[in-house]
Amino acid sequence: MRSSRLEAFSDGVLAIVITVMVLGLAVPKGETFTALWHTTGLGLLTYLLSFIYIGIYWNNHHHLFQLHPQVGGGVLWANLHLLFWLSLYPFTTAWLTETRVALVPTVIYGVNLLGAAIAYSILQAVIIRRPGGQRLREALGRDVKGWISPFLYVLGIGLAFVVPWLGLVPYIAVAVLWLIPDRRIERYIQAHPNDEE
Amino acid sequence: MRSSRLEAFSDGVLAIVITVMVLGLAVPKGETFTALWHTTGLGLLTYLLSFIYIGIYWNNHHHLFQLHPQVGGGVLWANLHLLFWLSLYPFTTAWLTETRVALVPTVIYGVNLLGAAIAYSILQAVIIRRPGGQRLREALGRDVKGWISPFLYVLGIGLAFVVPWLGLVPYIAVAVLWLIPDRRIERYIQAHPNDEE
Amino acid sequence: MRSSRLEAFSDGVLAIVITVMVLGLAVPKGETFTALWHTTGLGLLTYLLSFIYIGIYWNNHHHLFQLHPQVGGGVLWANLHLLFWLSLYPFTTAWLTETRVALVPTVIYGVNLLGAAIAYSILQAVIIRRPGGQRLREALGRDVKGWISPFLYVLGIGLAFVVPWLGLVPYIAVAVLWLIPDRRIERYIQAHPNDEE
Amino acid sequence: MRSSRLEAFSDGVLAIVITVMVLGLAVPKGETFTALWHTTGLGLLTYLLSFIYIGIYWNNHHHLFQLHPQVGGGVLWANLHLLFWLSLYPFTTAWLTETRVALVPTVIYGVNLLGAAIAYSILQAVIIRRPGGQRLREALGRDVKGWISPFLYVLGIGLAFVVPWLGLVPYIAVAVLWLIPDRRIERYIQAHPNDEE
Repeated sequence: MRSSRLEAFSDGVLAIVITVMVLGLAVPKGETFTALWHTTGLGLLTYLLSFIYIGIYWNNHHHLFQLHPQVGGGVLWANLHLLFWLSLYPFTTAWLTETRVALVPTVIYGVNLLGAAIAYSILQAVIIRRPGGQRLREALGRDVKGWISPFLYVLGIGLAFVVPWLGLVPYIAVAVLWLIPDRRIERYIQAHPNDEE
Repeated sequence: MRSSRLEAFSDGVLAIVITVMVLGLAVPKGETFTALWHTTGLGLLTYLLSFIYIGIYWNNHHHLFQLHPQVGGGVLWANLHLLFWLSLYPFTTAWLTETRVALVPTVIYGVNLLGAAIAYSILQAVIIRRPGGQRLREALGRDVKGWISPFLYVLGIGLAFVVPWLGLVPYIAVAVLWLIPDRRIERYIQAHPNDEE
Repeated sequence: MRSSRLEAFSDGVLAIVITVMVLGLAVPKGETFTALWHTTGLGLLTYLLSFIYIGIYWNNHHHLFQLHPQVGGGVLWANLHLLFWLSLYPFTTAWLTETRVALVPTVIYGVNLLGAAIAYSILQAVIIRRPGGQRLREALGRDVKGWISPFLYVLGIGLAFVVPWLGLVPYIAVAVLWLIPDRRIERYIQAHPNDEE
Repeated sequence: MRSSRLEAFSDGVLAIVITVMVLGLAVPKGETFTALWHTTGLGLLTYLLSFIYIGIYWNNHHHLFQLHPQVGGGVLWANLHLLFWLSLYPFTTAWLTETRVALVPTVIYGVNLLGAAIAYSILQAVIIRRPGGQRLREALGRDVKGWISPFLYVLGIGLAFVVPWLGLVPYIAVAVLWLIPDRRIERYIQAHPNDEE
């Protein structure tokens, strides 16, 4: 089964998730910079953070399917599972913003980030188990960033109980960590040109 | 006529239907777990159920067009008819949630599920009648799951008149039934490799 | 320039227009069939009508680009012009529904339908003027449905001034007229198989 | 890496941004032409302006990737950066409309236009620096329109401080300037047919 339709569907969902989050930005009541800052300032920052996360997942998803893995029922559902967690971002981002980073919404936002990270790991593992998946495993290597991210999310959830705002620090750290594009798969393709279709 | 544009359009509609349902999740008024549970708990469960349904239709739709059927005006409209029913999921899901699973909304949700199931059967039948459709008929075999689902929806509609919540049991049963991916068409392709283009 | 990206973009816009119209369906306040009928009954009917229109445009758009016309700046803008009119359907449909088919909203809905029809004619004319467009002109023949539709829209706008509801009759007539799929281009391709790339 | 998935994702985001802006159009409270004009008149004009901008970016984006540039991590993020600015159009357009073109919202709208223009320049520069990007630089030539647009946006932001409405004049001028399709890349391809893959 070709992976192209799976990629197109995922692109569609991610494109909509990004744009739907803008609908969560409250239009200021007044017409001053102060009104903009009070009504939307924080919303713009949380939107930017969630936008970067979706961008990271889109980039990595793109890379994951670059080695043309075989796509079966398991991969389809593992992918839908990831999309489910990502589709909740507009909701958890909106709650985080409206409560101005209160304790529970910060924890729930972290749980959402953690859920997506776990779903991504499952998708990766399912692809690796398919015929031809061995190449993805080799390309990923030790996958340090993949292992460290969940721990940072859990750290953020823990720190939120101290001071809610503090919980955002590890969340932002993960985003910065992944903003540096993952060249492992590109490097693998360059080193193994004959493997590529 | 190529089926690729029909698939891309359907992917687009399904991707948006999934994401639009998240807009139906009310952001909690308070900032506690209790507020989350009271405002959104049920909404998350009904969202999950409808998400799984859309995922099932996307998977099966994907399979339906894997044998590259000829696409004519009849298939286009049968497909739009299916998309019409699926596009109503955000509406019926939201009503089900807001009334906390009252009688009539549970019935209407079941009618929506039933309508989509019938539309899918019509689409399948229209494809089978097209030149080359015989292969799809052979791949589908006796189609037990396809026949049993409408009866389970009708059962759910009936049970809703006893206790509304009870109506959800057969609906959920159908989702579980289809979560197990349909390997019939994959198996058919493996058994008839020369048929595939 | 390939037309594939233009088609993909148009599919995206039409898929979203269809789904956004569902957001216009008000969720009933009560939990009875009566509440459903009063709050959403009319909305479902106008949604169905607009859904069919979008479906018709999608089908015809699909046919228009089946002969692989050359795509230049003119075609891109003529296509965006069509998408602009179609993107207003959710708005004019919502107003028509909320005023329960009052005079002015019925007129404006007709103006929207008329604007889209004119934009479609312009797109067709622009494609015909491009190199290779002669084939589309031959395939279209006398284009009776294309010529009669704007007159029916104008008739509907006129009838709305007598009784608003009466204006919907010609609008619905156009939808029925086009529901019968347009086989001219398919027939042309079958008759001129060598022309096709 | 193929640019096709990047193009598909961008198409998705732009298609949704366009359609989401329609959700910002307030449905008139009354059912008269006066009600339509008062509630939605200005909204239709600002929607049209933003629609044209998105159309321009879509057209130019289309052209940018026509020479099949190599796509790496840098291009992916430069593209996401552009999409971020474009995704804010529904928000800034809605604020501009609701305040009936007040000073600060006009300035912020200009900042949004300017941000997108700068992001587009960065994307262009990143593509030019990639292997094979030299061809894009040659095709673009002196890029007068690309250089003049940011100055017009800054002029608009400045004029807004005199009379808010006056700020819209340079914004509209940029839209008109770009409405004339950019034939540089098409001309380059015609002049260098062998360069094209």
